[in-house]
Amino acid sequence: MNGQMMQQPLLISSLITHAERHHGDQEVVSRRVEGDIHRTTYRELAATSRQLAKAMVALGVGPGDRVATLAWNGYRHMALYYAVSGSGAVLHTLNPRLHPEQVIYIADHAEDQVLCFDLTFLPLVEAVAARLKTVKHFVAMTERAHMPAATKIPNLLCFDEIVAAQDSHYDWPSFDENTASSLCYTSGTTGNPKGVLYSHRSTLLHTFAIAMPDALNCSARDSILPVVPMFHVNAWGLPYAACMVGAKMVFPGPGLDGKSLFELFEAEGVTVSAGVPTVWQGLLGYMEANNARFSTMRRTVIGGSACPPAMMRAFQDKYDVQVIHAWGMTEMSPVGTAAILKGKHLAMDHEAQFAVQATQGRAVYGVDMKIVDADGKALPWDGQTSGELLVRGPWILQDYYRGEGGNPLVDGWFPTGDVATIDADGYMHITDRSKDVIKSGGEWIGSIDLENIAMAHPAVAMAACIAAFHPKWDERPLLVVMKKPGAEVTRDELLAFFDGKIAKWWTPDDVVFVDAIPLGATGKMQKNKLREAFKDHRLPTA
Amino acid sequence: MNGQMMQQPLLISSLITHAERHHGDQEVVSRRVEGDIHRTTYRELAATSRQLAKAMVALGVGPGDRVATLAWNGYRHMALYYAVSGSGAVLHTLNPRLHPEQVIYIADHAEDQVLCFDLTFLPLVEAVAARLKTVKHFVAMTERAHMPAATKIPNLLCFDEIVAAQDSHYDWPSFDENTASSLCYTSGTTGNPKGVLYSHRSTLLHTFAIAMPDALNCSARDSILPVVPMFHVNAWGLPYAACMVGAKMVFPGPGLDGKSLFELFEAEGVTVSAGVPTVWQGLLGYMEANNARFSTMRRTVIGGSACPPAMMRAFQDKYDVQVIHAWGMTEMSPVGTAAILKGKHLAMDHEAQFAVQATQGRAVYGVDMKIVDADGKALPWDGQTSGELLVRGPWILQDYYRGEGGNPLVDGWFPTGDVATIDADGYMHITDRSKDVIKSGGEWIGSIDLENIAMAHPAVAMAACIAAFHPKWDERPLLVVMKKPGAEVTRDELLAFFDGKIAKWWTPDDVVFVDAIPLGATGKMQKNKLREAFKDHRLPTA
Repeated sequence: MNGQMMQQPLLISSLITHAERHHGDQEVVSRRVEGDIHRTTYRELAATSRQLAKAMVALGVGPGDRVATLAWNGYRHMALYYAVSGSGAVLHTLNPRLHPEQVIYIADHAEDQVLCFDLTFLPLVEAVAARLKTVKHFVAMTERAHMPAATKIPNLLCFDEIVAAQDSHYDWPSFDENTASSLCYTSGTTGNPKGVLYSHRSTLLHTFAIAMPDALNCSARDSILPVVPMFHVNAWGLPYAACMVGAKMVFPGPGLDGKSLFELFEAEGVTVSAGVPTVWQGLLGYMEANNARFSTMRRTVIGGSACPPAMMRAFQDKYDVQVIHAWGMTEMSPVGTAAILKGKHLAMDHEAQFAVQATQGRAVYGVDMKIVDADGKALPWDGQTSGELLVRGPWILQDYYRGEGGNPLVDGWFPTGDVATIDADGYMHITDRSKDVIKSGGEWIGSIDLENIAMAHPAVAMAACIAAFHPKWDERPLLVVMKKPGAEVTRDELLAFFDGKIAKWWTPDDVVFVDAIPLGATGKMQKNKLREAFKDHRLPTA
Repeated sequence: MNGQMMQQPLLISSLITHAERHHGDQEVVSRRVEGDIHRTTYRELAATSRQLAKAMVALGVGPGDRVATLAWNGYRHMALYYAVSGSGAVLHTLNPRLHPEQVIYIADHAEDQVLCFDLTFLPLVEAVAARLKTVKHFVAMTERAHMPAATKIPNLLCFDEIVAAQDSHYDWPSFDENTASSLCYTSGTTGNPKGVLYSHRSTLLHTFAIAMPDALNCSARDSILPVVPMFHVNAWGLPYAACMVGAKMVFPGPGLDGKSLFELFEAEGVTVSAGVPTVWQGLLGYMEANNARFSTMRRTVIGGSACPPAMMRAFQDKYDVQVIHAWGMTEMSPVGTAAILKGKHLAMDHEAQFAVQATQGRAVYGVDMKIVDADGKALPWDGQTSGELLVRGPWILQDYYRGEGGNPLVDGWFPTGDVATIDADGYMHITDRSKDVIKSGGEWIGSIDLENIAMAHPAVAMAACIAAFHPKWDERPLLVVMKKPGAEVTRDELLAFFDGKIAKWWTPDDVVFVDAIPLGATGKMQKNKLREAFKDHRLPTA
């Protein structure tokens, strides 16, 4: 027997419609590639999205067709989020930091029909346009006055013109909520990138989950600035959550340096932000150098990579900004956990609370987790035992796009590739990526804890810990360090810095100093490149 | 083309499983009918729910079968919420405040197979048991020691015994999320009560919606005490939301007097509560008499009927408890709107903010509203124009149970029977029930505003405004007043109290004083009875 409530599909278009009707005058503010600050409202953005949906139809984009973007965070990109998905097509957010060959591979694999791009990426698009097999239309996301005077791209369209050519009379179509809405490719460090194809249903449920009080806690009193790019797993869902709750939206565009970010935070009363650890280093550096203070910032989500505890302390203790340490994956839409205190923690002292916040957090409702041993047997949630982390839930991947890589699931669970502990309260702590874990004499050493200790040293800008060959133990930890400009520290000083902070046998066997640690397209350290670079490194203990 | 994310149905069992795994030691505290305070945890309650699910199967309860309750708010009732719905059967929460004839009508109409009841309601169950056509098993929700020594009910089962007879090894079944989960009957003042049959999907989506920051804002740091009964639209969803977020749950059982409630609020660190306006009068009266102050209470939801502004001011200004004025219906699961400030309101002064909070609020995401004129034409959202309020959304009724009353929808929208204005920010203000509105010379006068003014008078305990016959104007407002004990006020003093607070022609034509205003089974004033009682009242203006 079924219930007798209305059957309404969960569709992305309902978010912009809700924002338009109930928060019509709420602002959407963008720093533009053109150089200025642009202001619009949900009422106007909803109309723009409908015009843009009609423009896409006019370009021949039909249900299920892929429309790609190469764009910063901005209102035009947000209009594409709603126009493309809302009309039944699929938004494919390409990562402009990828190598041009990867962009070509991914756009061809996705069979993108239209490519919309910010002017910043004109050289990239010009470099690849002739080789893209399926793209029929190129759209520069700008107004006529800023269109390039000359370009190698044939029939280059102007975003503002194709929008203006349509009126805003358009009824968002209704369809099955399992319809594909958007497509992101993983930034896999091995093999070709694989596509994750989200549905309207998975996106809407994820939006509910991240807006909740114990996740990103989004309300109509917030001003949200996603530093995390809209090409990085849909800016972790914030462009959807903002419409669901009617929050003010602030987009930094290309201005991701500390000064530009800080000025925008202050000018627009930003209360909530989100980004990967590397992006915050610039902001914190700027604030330190200028003795700056936030007026309105209350909290920021840090994820994508483990947040170094030193960075969390800087935000919380020095700038009074709550850090919400979160964890997820492209395959998880992306949010899985958030490190938010429970009632039982409120009476604890500062350090005990910090220890909870420093974990990757507990699962948001909808995500289930387990850790397993090498035989797939579930391991206890004791905060000590580590194992491979598996997840499941309605916004977690079932299959990669076009079935790439075969069935990725293990008994219905998605293996995350992370190694983690989970404590009795459900707080998960990632000790490593399974491919990065250091196998020393049959025991596992997690590289992340070692990196966090090193990063707490005042002279260290960035640190990566990788496995180096050892004749007796198979692998031993090698610490790769990038020093802060002008700072000095010796190998022995750094190794001594580990004393008392970790089990003695976890202490790295050696330190090498480098000018730069290679970062991937989403800001993660590329340890595979370091392993390759130091594959012949001879440990002094060997 | 469909997305490629996991297909997991939204099932009620997932809530208790989430609470068990991630908030296993969180407390569920109940004042019991037996007289004591009972403490359990989500871990134990999840096990009890599984045992109870097996016990129901052992009693022959199959998928879709209805299991009725006549019970206060308590942990056994909460276990039934999860056991019955989770196993695929339908939980039917009967309202014990109904007349026995209505209980019989509803239980027969629902074809309840099992009836579980608190000992308080033994006399009621004994009075109706022999006449119930479909109930095969009666279960007293108590332990063996408190079972009645003698009863007219044949084969009366003991709740704790049937639970203890099962082990907790039970896998919650998986099924279509549109499966019926629970059944509530409207307390219709005209005609027979009609059943609203919720689904797992509608319940889960509603749970997300009410836990959001701009609704009830529930987190794992909250201690939630629903004063609103679990037989009153599932305590507005709080027993579900508490599991979703891992909040502490506190149940008042039969102790709804001011002293019992206040003591429980204080003893259990309650931060959030919810209830109809009438229930709060006892609590506020107790606190005033005893000069009491809340230590932990932060906010309470008030709905079911419009909250008198005087009560909102008492909570907010005197006791520093935020009142979340909310609106909904049994047909809406029930929450539709909540009066929460937006960012733009934060800079306003106290009175301007209060005016926003005094409305019924803005729609939570998922609920869409419109107001229409007599021809069904949509009216503007200007805060002035009033019309019939219609709603739609995935947790709003499509059809009544067993098709009772035919198609209740108008072009896919559910007509609420309320008359309301909506302002440009989406804040909805109910001016009346459409059947209570006073039609004076072709114009509408909303009775609720008049009642709120009267209730603000220090001598008035309760006031109802009804239409009285007038030879010239057809109808004019008649104010029916119950004075506070020992307080005195005259007709003319009360009418003068309206001066300057409302348009002159809205002022009631007369006042009558009564010893009591009749309340329905959910605490709402029964104006139909007042209209009947005063149908021959001769207005002095006539």
